Amino acid sequence: MRKNKRPRRSEPEQAAGNGVLDRRLFLTGSAVAIASAALPDKARAAEPLPVQPWMKTPGAPFTPYGQPSKYANKVARVVSSIPGTTGTGTSRTPHHLLDGMITPNGLHFERHHNGVPDINPEAHRLLIHGLVNRPLVFTLEALMRYPMESRIAFIECAGNSALLYQKEPAQLGVQPIHGLLSCAEWTGVRLATLLEEAGVDPRAQWILAEGADSAGMSRSVPLAKAMGDALIAIYQNGEPVRPSNGYPMRLLLPGYEGNMNVKWLRRIKLTEAPTMTKDETSKYTILQNDGKSLQFCFTQEAKSVITRPSPGLTMGAPGLYEITGLAWSGYGKIAKVEVSADGGASWALAALQEPVLPMAVTRFRSPWRWDGGPATLQSRATDDSGYVQPSRAKLIADRGARGNYHFNGIASWGVAQGGEVKHVYA
Amino acid sequence: MRKNKRPRRSEPEQAAGNGVLDRRLFLTGSAVAIASAALPDKARAAEPLPVQPWMKTPGAPFTPYGQPSKYANKVARVVSSIPGTTGTGTSRTPHHLLDGMITPNGLHFERHHNGVPDINPEAHRLLIHGLVNRPLVFTLEALMRYPMESRIAFIECAGNSALLYQKEPAQLGVQPIHGLLSCAEWTGVRLATLLEEAGVDPRAQWILAEGADSAGMSRSVPLAKAMGDALIAIYQNGEPVRPSNGYPMRLLLPGYEGNMNVKWLRRIKLTEAPTMTKDETSKYTILQNDGKSLQFCFTQEAKSVITRPSPGLTMGAPGLYEITGLAWSGYGKIAKVEVSADGGASWALAALQEPVLPMAVTRFRSPWRWDGGPATLQSRATDDSGYVQPSRAKLIADRGARGNYHFNGIASWGVAQGGEVKHVYA
Repeated sequence: MRKNKRPRRSEPEQAAGNGVLDRRLFLTGSAVAIASAALPDKARAAEPLPVQPWMKTPGAPFTPYGQPSKYANKVARVVSSIPGTTGTGTSRTPHHLLDGMITPNGLHFERHHNGVPDINPEAHRLLIHGLVNRPLVFTLEALMRYPMESRIAFIECAGNSALLYQKEPAQLGVQPIHGLLSCAEWTGVRLATLLEEAGVDPRAQWILAEGADSAGMSRSVPLAKAMGDALIAIYQNGEPVRPSNGYPMRLLLPGYEGNMNVKWLRRIKLTEAPTMTKDETSKYTILQNDGKSLQFCFTQEAKSVITRPSPGLTMGAPGLYEITGLAWSGYGKIAKVEVSADGGASWALAALQEPVLPMAVTRFRSPWRWDGGPATLQSRATDDSGYVQPSRAKLIADRGARGNYHFNGIASWGVAQGGEVKHVYA
Repeated sequence: MRKNKRPRRSEPEQAAGNGVLDRRLFLTGSAVAIASAALPDKARAAEPLPVQPWMKTPGAPFTPYGQPSKYANKVARVVSSIPGTTGTGTSRTPHHLLDGMITPNGLHFERHHNGVPDINPEAHRLLIHGLVNRPLVFTLEALMRYPMESRIAFIECAGNSALLYQKEPAQLGVQPIHGLLSCAEWTGVRLATLLEEAGVDPRAQWILAEGADSAGMSRSVPLAKAMGDALIAIYQNGEPVRPSNGYPMRLLLPGYEGNMNVKWLRRIKLTEAPTMTKDETSKYTILQNDGKSLQFCFTQEAKSVITRPSPGLTMGAPGLYEITGLAWSGYGKIAKVEVSADGGASWALAALQEPVLPMAVTRFRSPWRWDGGPATLQSRATDDSGYVQPSRAKLIADRGARGNYHFNGIASWGVAQGGEVKHVYA
């Protein structure tokens, strides 16, 4: 009966069909009351709270390096490796259980080609050679004397979301489908600083970057990128880069496909032309319908994905929900994200969480009044170059469905009558 | 001899005495060459790099939740607890070994009054009561339906840097002296949302916030702050808040002294006046020379500290170094940081790492050409309210030396002839 005692409030207007509300609901205090009015009633609070056992005895001692709660043990990466190996495959970030823009280091996705090398940093070296005036070798200690720079940047595997090339929607959730994406604050030395010191021969147009893993992961990178915003990253979210992310140093190429951000970096060779390594010929090319492949597709184009609601998270009672997710572009900042609850028939602007940074993920949020009936949830990102995330149909019409890499089309979650959420094509 | 082959470059001008160079050295590619020219020569690279053992065998398998390298095991918190206890005391962030603005969750500082409770989130409740129209009880699950908000915010213990009240400079480094400060991205529900739903009685001017630890940590907070930017934080750097930081939920009061950001939050009571809890009367007040105490000093004022060079990190050969550190203010954004190498006789502007966010730490960097002789390094923060971090002498002249809390004076690292770095007063 408490509901009747509340002052009547005007109903928030729909910003798009099937219950998507104006994003400014989240930006004004008063509107929040509208939101909460639509949430299920809370328990009455006539009784004092019970005194729990953990309030009656001293708690656990301090630890030098902290860990998550044992009750949060589902907040973990899912691992899949190629049969017969333990270290060739992927682990994926559980975005349906996370919020914010930072991926904590323990949950950053991994893509390894032959496991995680156990590198002694004192023995590790970084060689810069090829078309340079002075080949140079750096220890980690030497690198740490150089001026540093930090940037919050996403890394996305070129193979992320590849399941959407399939004819039928894979009956999986956001983690296995879209979990090869993470975002961290990386700190390190600009590669340009080291290349200037080595002295770049005018004939050099490319670099080869090689990892110290036993797969010898190697990619060619245009010199312009190397002289631009490329970093030799030494720190990840403040602490030394994790072994699974390249300890003691990795290449960071903001916006470029994941594998080019070579982990365990040991060698940069300046060259006239791309080296045509195994990793850029037998893999990481986009096969088209005519049997030809697109090579050297470096930049991850604008994309977004709704992380909640998403498959595996069942809806509760009808009422107000927050639709939230991540948007990113390798070409710059996210300019806007639109959300639809009717499969793209109508769209409303989502609220973007500040700070909105170039080549970083942007968290978006949109209020949604679910009426308990069917809905198809979609998000569509636009970056500050004006590029708009395409529909799945358009992407496949343009490129074919054999590409395997760089899928950035719009993804759809279907909400059924009753609240089950499934991956659908729409 | 390689040096002679280099084109002659103009010497960078000093921006302040004793070798502090212009911050723009770090912002321009060409200047970087000047920097590197001042660094020790690199090893010649005539030989190919050795092939290390980790390149010859498959690496380690994937893991659901990652950990740091065993070689980085010194990157850990230092723990001190009151004799006879294991959970009453502090652990401190190793800022001398970190870089960037984010503190990873495993290294966020801790201050507990009776250990870390092992809270089952399904049994945990948040009660909102007192001067409200409708007392409410929230489960974690209910809270997670609400609109969320993220912000990157520092938390600093009111007792951080208290050693600088001592007559003689403690012979310790940045971690034990200044390590009760960390910065993370926090995501949660605005407290205002919940208070609006409960309906605030016009007589209410304060809230009491109580934790579910066995110390019953409790603080009074002005209602204006609670209705402002206060969050019920559920996520820390993307993942569920760590037990040592309040799992399953904590209060976040951006800019306010650490203990008010009550961990393991179980109860918010709206009151007419402050509750005068043990934690705001017997502790967390600033004792002055006349024997009276300042109470309810909530906001952490503008402050900065140089994290490198710092005691424990011995300088190498003379030449170019980066002076780097952190600056923050509970009143807003950092407007500028100045650096001195001559004990405050002259100052130069440091470069500020973007993004510069309110109530978050800002990383600053300044190039410094160390001539091998004695130097006294200092940093001085100014926030966007115009407030300037005071000298230690001025702070103590104004407030006395018995305060124990809120020390935000300028700290000094002395570099001796030969490169040893020590804590000094200057």
